[in-house]
Amino acid sequence: MSRFLSGRISRMSPYIPGEQPRGGQYIKLNTNELPFPPSPKAIEAINREVLRDMRLYPDPEVSVLIKAAADFYGVAPSMVYAGNGSDEVLAFAFMAFLERRRLFAPDISYGFYPVYARLFDADYQEMPLREDLSLSVDDYMKVHGNIVIANPNAPTGLAVPVEDIEKLAAARQDRLVIIDEAYGDFWGQSCVPLTEKYDNLLVVQTLSKSRALAGMRVGLAVGSPALIEDLNRVKFSFHPYNINRLSLIAAAEALEDRKYFEKTTAKIISLREGLKSALRERGFSLTDSQSNFVFAKSCKTGGGELYLKLKEKRVLVRRFDLPRIRDYLRITVGSEGEIAALLSALDELRA
Amino acid sequence: MSRFLSGRISRMSPYIPGEQPRGGQYIKLNTNELPFPPSPKAIEAINREVLRDMRLYPDPEVSVLIKAAADFYGVAPSMVYAGNGSDEVLAFAFMAFLERRRLFAPDISYGFYPVYARLFDADYQEMPLREDLSLSVDDYMKVHGNIVIANPNAPTGLAVPVEDIEKLAAARQDRLVIIDEAYGDFWGQSCVPLTEKYDNLLVVQTLSKSRALAGMRVGLAVGSPALIEDLNRVKFSFHPYNINRLSLIAAAEALEDRKYFEKTTAKIISLREGLKSALRERGFSLTDSQSNFVFAKSCKTGGGELYLKLKEKRVLVRRFDLPRIRDYLRITVGSEGEIAALLSALDELRA
Repeated sequence: MSRFLSGRISRMSPYIPGEQPRGGQYIKLNTNELPFPPSPKAIEAINREVLRDMRLYPDPEVSVLIKAAADFYGVAPSMVYAGNGSDEVLAFAFMAFLERRRLFAPDISYGFYPVYARLFDADYQEMPLREDLSLSVDDYMKVHGNIVIANPNAPTGLAVPVEDIEKLAAARQDRLVIIDEAYGDFWGQSCVPLTEKYDNLLVVQTLSKSRALAGMRVGLAVGSPALIEDLNRVKFSFHPYNINRLSLIAAAEALEDRKYFEKTTAKIISLREGLKSALRERGFSLTDSQSNFVFAKSCKTGGGELYLKLKEKRVLVRRFDLPRIRDYLRITVGSEGEIAALLSALDELRA
Repeated sequence: MSRFLSGRISRMSPYIPGEQPRGGQYIKLNTNELPFPPSPKAIEAINREVLRDMRLYPDPEVSVLIKAAADFYGVAPSMVYAGNGSDEVLAFAFMAFLERRRLFAPDISYGFYPVYARLFDADYQEMPLREDLSLSVDDYMKVHGNIVIANPNAPTGLAVPVEDIEKLAAARQDRLVIIDEAYGDFWGQSCVPLTEKYDNLLVVQTLSKSRALAGMRVGLAVGSPALIEDLNRVKFSFHPYNINRLSLIAAAEALEDRKYFEKTTAKIISLREGLKSALRERGFSLTDSQSNFVFAKSCKTGGGELYLKLKEKRVLVRRFDLPRIRDYLRITVGSEGEIAALLSALDELRA
């Protein structure tokens, strides 16, 4: 740490991302990437675009991508913002709307929310999930402050019905409700249509999960034109060219290729349900995850031990050493082969 | 503007980037891109990488790129930070080191510095350049606050000798000196070697200019391991995967291809000197730019008028409507053909 670092940043703990092993062969089920490649149309678009104008700055308005996203979600382009991954979208949203303000979020959720809160000096209030790790919107109805909810939640995978989110948005027009739908496509429902009706609702999406473009870093937000204008205001005060030429075009093509998206998403949902059954048969307790991961607890082996034993067997999963969930493992829904390898490792471990 | 936007952000004016025309054919000499494509090795690397693992997150440590940059600059990898374009590097540096602190910068310089200062609530003090637009380091020797200097400066193109920057860094160990060398490669000198000696010096670089990778968004910072650790602390509190897989590999290859870099940089310097002479012959006043642009004032036509007339002739240059420089045009050193087109447009306009 240098003597120049700001006090607030020196006192905070940065986010610790899931391991991204560079060497060694792992069955990598720890950061919820898709086991399939992105749409072949996205790859073709990159191959075409790379031969053209890489020397030139990208379009700072990212119009091609905004149009593709607006078409996909059936909203006006003025209701869509695009950023360098949904983490950047969230960071800009915290900067624009939550700095030095109070916000409420579930006690068990995406670990980056409290980091953003500290980075932007927000008053972060944890709201406990129910005993079964589900979220009750009633807990949030009367709170004084903004609200951030991942839906489906991570790492639990549990989803709150859209009608319940609508109740939250409708209850108080003076507070902002941010719904992080990073995993929404695997649930098959979305709060995006509500953004037409509620100008205090911002829905965040990513192309890193269901579109298999984690390597390209594109995230989206959908909300009222005024909220989107505000996000652009932050972007143009921070770095106007935040999405590069290739990510821009790849994301637009991936959004346009509905057929591939629907096929791969349906396949993941089917693999997820199969994985849930297989783990239940082995005595695991599971949440009813609506995401591309399962959240599972062995009845025999503690979470920390099982995580390490799987790692020894070259299967990488994610475990959070936090109250209430330290015996759970968050396991990405991999390919059929990866799931078979996971199950056979668990059988060998008698976990 | 929504009712949720933070007061500070609502009151500030975002940066206005140079026009990036999408339609129409322009001779584009307004945002200082190289007229040459990036290293063919960078393109080949993208073509290889795009077939592999786009579904996976990039390496958050961007080790391949850090190693290539460290090799190029002859410093330890612990002294190099990489970000999503040098604008993001600068934004993170302001966030880490300058928030709510005082800093000094030239009154005529990169227009983003005062925007960052407002975004991070810094006390931004403008220090006037000399009458001839050159910078005297003596003005900064006794100031109480941090210092940000673009070297060569933009839009003047004028460079401060490395020895003078060393004086600044040596004078006061308790203040941070940020040197933005976005255009340094066209000058051929650099303060990077000073970072081994002065732990209060941070040098920012970009691959958008001399490496012709504006479309891929990669910026760098070189400084003491403690400063670099601080920048990584901000990055891991903001978005750990800020550089995508393709930008990462393209930038590493571009840094390794010294031969191509030296050839294209030398060519730009030679074209720049030719353009300066041609403009002087036409009665223009010019600064002695050490960048890949010239900064020139017609003796006959005002800056605003000439900018518009050139635009009508499909030649796009940049003009800043600011005191002391409103009659100047900042003109990117384009290809031979682009320079010829510019000169013939000026001749037709009798500018």
